[in-house]
Amino acid sequence: MTPPQTTAMSLAEIETLALSVFRAQGCDEDNTAALARTVTTAERDGSVSHGLFRVPGYVASLQSGKVNGSAQPKVSNDLASVVTVDGDFGYAPLALERGLPVLAEAAQTTGIAVMRVVNNFHFAALWPEVEYLADRGLMGLACTAFKPTVAPAGATQAFFGTNPLSFAWPRPGTTPLVFDMATSTLAKGDVQIAARDGHDVPPGTGLGPDGQPTTNPAEILKGVLLPFGGYKGSAIAMMVELLCAGMTGDYFSFEAGQHDNNDGGPAKGGELVIAINPQLVAGEGWQDHCESFFTAIRQLDGVRLPGDRRHKNRLDTGPRQINSDLIGRIRAMC
Amino acid sequence: MTPPQTTAMSLAEIETLALSVFRAQGCDEDNTAALARTVTTAERDGSVSHGLFRVPGYVASLQSGKVNGSAQPKVSNDLASVVTVDGDFGYAPLALERGLPVLAEAAQTTGIAVMRVVNNFHFAALWPEVEYLADRGLMGLACTAFKPTVAPAGATQAFFGTNPLSFAWPRPGTTPLVFDMATSTLAKGDVQIAARDGHDVPPGTGLGPDGQPTTNPAEILKGVLLPFGGYKGSAIAMMVELLCAGMTGDYFSFEAGQHDNNDGGPAKGGELVIAINPQLVAGEGWQDHCESFFTAIRQLDGVRLPGDRRHKNRLDTGPRQINSDLIGRIRAMC
Repeated sequence: MTPPQTTAMSLAEIETLALSVFRAQGCDEDNTAALARTVTTAERDGSVSHGLFRVPGYVASLQSGKVNGSAQPKVSNDLASVVTVDGDFGYAPLALERGLPVLAEAAQTTGIAVMRVVNNFHFAALWPEVEYLADRGLMGLACTAFKPTVAPAGATQAFFGTNPLSFAWPRPGTTPLVFDMATSTLAKGDVQIAARDGHDVPPGTGLGPDGQPTTNPAEILKGVLLPFGGYKGSAIAMMVELLCAGMTGDYFSFEAGQHDNNDGGPAKGGELVIAINPQLVAGEGWQDHCESFFTAIRQLDGVRLPGDRRHKNRLDTGPRQINSDLIGRIRAMC
Repeated sequence: MTPPQTTAMSLAEIETLALSVFRAQGCDEDNTAALARTVTTAERDGSVSHGLFRVPGYVASLQSGKVNGSAQPKVSNDLASVVTVDGDFGYAPLALERGLPVLAEAAQTTGIAVMRVVNNFHFAALWPEVEYLADRGLMGLACTAFKPTVAPAGATQAFFGTNPLSFAWPRPGTTPLVFDMATSTLAKGDVQIAARDGHDVPPGTGLGPDGQPTTNPAEILKGVLLPFGGYKGSAIAMMVELLCAGMTGDYFSFEAGQHDNNDGGPAKGGELVIAINPQLVAGEGWQDHCESFFTAIRQLDGVRLPGDRRHKNRLDTGPRQINSDLIGRIRAMC
């Protein structure tokens, strides 16, 4: 199979294309700008499966009428450490841009705070929200669900979403430690890209429609993904369900599966974000203490800190190579 | 190899034996009672590696003078959502018994609260603290570190502890959903028991002293354990380090390794416990919503909810089969 053709685009060109398509598809200016920022920062950091690759899904969910492209998320903060964002049935980026400053201020003052985001459609990476918190001196933890895509350990039937979990630890003066991982063996976007590009996926990634293990991504997309790390990863995936649905009141993955119109865009769901202030919990000296940890782990052979590659990609201000067919499809939607 | 000889002991006899040995080894009454409760509830629930099996380690750390058997943990709660327990260089059970009621009340009032436990030696399972919270209607999350035992993904050298993570979700009217898992492939206690009983461990559990994979538990005890789930599990193990050491100010595993006297008992370290009140975050109706999730997942073939086996063991009020050699060793310490 020949590798897919790509076209070089600058980050400014990527953002302009994203702004054009969301505007053309009827989003208001606030949502257009937030979505374009999200797509562009994903391409900037090399998170290809959350960049322009997502645009056709966003557009499908606007065209089907499922998502409100003019959503005005509402933030409430009645208890000092509890923030609620009602997403007004729009996409996550604007809801998060409205809620995160309130969450950060709450945690900076009280030591720990939690934000639930409901009535919201999340189709982006999960590191921007926790990196926002870490840039303000806070630990951030975030998770969300999806539709049934992953079989719990021991089962062959999809029940959990890919249920990503992200975590960031603040490192004032340098980029934070950040991870953002699906609790499935691979993220669904990575399986979709492997299918598009004709690559196999590693053994253990998932089961085909017959319930048997396969390395063919197209078969797994018709079947089911598996959780990472067997029954332990399955327990983490269940914890994510309980945090982002049980603790928000929005859909569990199995409920999203019952209600979604399967237009190819995101499903409605909740997100939970926790912020903790090490200055108020660990107290003075926490930063030097943690830097001694990062220094020590970097001395081990073979270890790379999570987030390093993404932050290195970010330093490259040059053009990104974008799938040419994808660009053509997006231009046709503008 | 013949299976090890066991002796039947009632739970009351187990508790009496534990009370005797901790008293004889110089613990005060408060610490003796808390330790005996911890050992007995572990045996009651079938958590064998945290039951009487731990007593020789507890005794070694009393005899070496490392741990204060008369510790009087101090609880402070200056910020509404932040609780600190200074363990006074004693064992975790008494520190937790003093701190948990304060943490639970904080979360019941403010919606979310965090407790850091410092100057403390944790040698027990991690489910009792989160189950305490869940029994009071709260989500509980807890973690602690250890000494270097686990190689980060990509490395062959021990750096992380076994870094257990426990989670409980409240289910008013029935036992909570609870998991308590080492972020290593196996807990060290399970590898020790396999070595004692002459069983192999599963492939992938760890590396021998030569850095090569092995299924011989004795070789792994001389070498290094691996994180569960590859680089994703390794990221979780790193998160545990940052939460229980970075967020408490107590030792990272690598620091505990530098300072511990290796007497066979627990190492000094921190623990972080987070409690969230779904009634104040998700709001009214959270319980029925979550029960619909538990009902749905139980309908899948092959799935067992975490904690189920332990809670089932708990219903058995009959005698437990205890390793006879272990009983003899403990009696000799009384």
